[in-house]
Amino acid sequence: MYEAIYRRRDMRRFLTRPVSDKLIRRILRAAHQAGSVGLMQPWNFMIIRDLDIKHRVKEEFLRANQEAGRGAGDEQQRLAQNLTSEVIEQAPINLAVTCDRSRRSPPVFDPQALLDRELFVTCCALQNLWLAARAEGVGVGWINNLDPSAVAEILGLPAGIVLVGYLCMGHVARFTDAPTLDTAGGESRLSLESVLFYDRWGNRAPEAHHDERPTDNAPPRRTTRSLPRGSRGT
Amino acid sequence: MYEAIYRRRDMRRFLTRPVSDKLIRRILRAAHQAGSVGLMQPWNFMIIRDLDIKHRVKEEFLRANQEAGRGAGDEQQRLAQNLTSEVIEQAPINLAVTCDRSRRSPPVFDPQALLDRELFVTCCALQNLWLAARAEGVGVGWINNLDPSAVAEILGLPAGIVLVGYLCMGHVARFTDAPTLDTAGGESRLSLESVLFYDRWGNRAPEAHHDERPTDNAPPRRTTRSLPRGSRGT
Repeated sequence: MYEAIYRRRDMRRFLTRPVSDKLIRRILRAAHQAGSVGLMQPWNFMIIRDLDIKHRVKEEFLRANQEAGRGAGDEQQRLAQNLTSEVIEQAPINLAVTCDRSRRSPPVFDPQALLDRELFVTCCALQNLWLAARAEGVGVGWINNLDPSAVAEILGLPAGIVLVGYLCMGHVARFTDAPTLDTAGGESRLSLESVLFYDRWGNRAPEAHHDERPTDNAPPRRTTRSLPRGSRGT
Repeated sequence: MYEAIYRRRDMRRFLTRPVSDKLIRRILRAAHQAGSVGLMQPWNFMIIRDLDIKHRVKEEFLRANQEAGRGAGDEQQRLAQNLTSEVIEQAPINLAVTCDRSRRSPPVFDPQALLDRELFVTCCALQNLWLAARAEGVGVGWINNLDPSAVAEILGLPAGIVLVGYLCMGHVARFTDAPTLDTAGGESRLSLESVLFYDRWGNRAPEAHHDERPTDNAPPRRTTRSLPRGSRGT
């Protein structure tokens, strides 16, 4: 499990080989096991293989990015944008993860707090999906910079259904060694120390708590089972 | 990994045995491995062991719930509420997961879309944490019905830092067999079919895609490695 967590990547290249319904359902059943307040299970999953739908989402992606003037002056950005637009059509599966805010909200809970919680647990389901896909050797790319309302129209989402994530999925030749894709260049992983506080904001680890000094970001343990072949960056 | 996903629970009972910093950091490093747009890593984790802070959060939880009139007429709700308030103090660790919306947003991305994405990827980190904890035999309970701004004040969160989740964590005697806690009673897991569409909203699986008919929600495969002892509901 730690291997799946540490080797999960945001992919932008997929093999054309189809992803079987059996496999995608196994991955989605893992997503569907996420927790949700009052077991409301507010998520829906839409498996998109239809070429026309993919094409329309791609065109919408290009339109939105051109309108925002992204990539206009930056060659690296323009290339990344083109790669992303192509992968929407090229990936065997596009997957829309949506949140239905009206589903089975139990009256015991505060509606205001739940407004966010429904979205949050849908993201937890999405992460289950991402990890299960990684363990199965299936790549996932989360497409940014889409106009959610425009995509919602293409997919025919009713009012009240929120698009949480638009993913591209498919088998991959290899997973990248480091999460270099999807960075604007130069960013690196922060140390755990730098995002960790004790008891109050700004309070760094008191001495008594330092019974371990992590030296790297490597997985804590090696397992004897390996992830699927072709998934170790070789 | 599937075992951790399928056997993850929202716990409300913990052993008093402390959770070592070594263990909690291993779990948090897994959280910290989540993906984030442009590697912005917008999350912070606050490990709370301070009894005064826990007590103030508990009191705030009771205040908010009484103000909302929750549990006033329903014995079951009142008991669940008391159990939750007690567990805030009783759990060896409270953990606040927060999102810093101003951290390293790369200019290439659309700020409006990112407003949500920052929160979404923080939830993905939280799910990593939840699964890693489960694999380590550590229970996690996500506390609902807290007033985020009141808790933010207790924790000293600066403006712009959003409280995404307030968790209780600790070793447990046993994980529950089924996700019965935190339900308002009677709810059951939806079938995957009922939350699954193809290509467009409302379009149920076309016949050609039915190469598998799932019969239950059991983990798809048995692994040879077991989760830690005392974690199988025995």
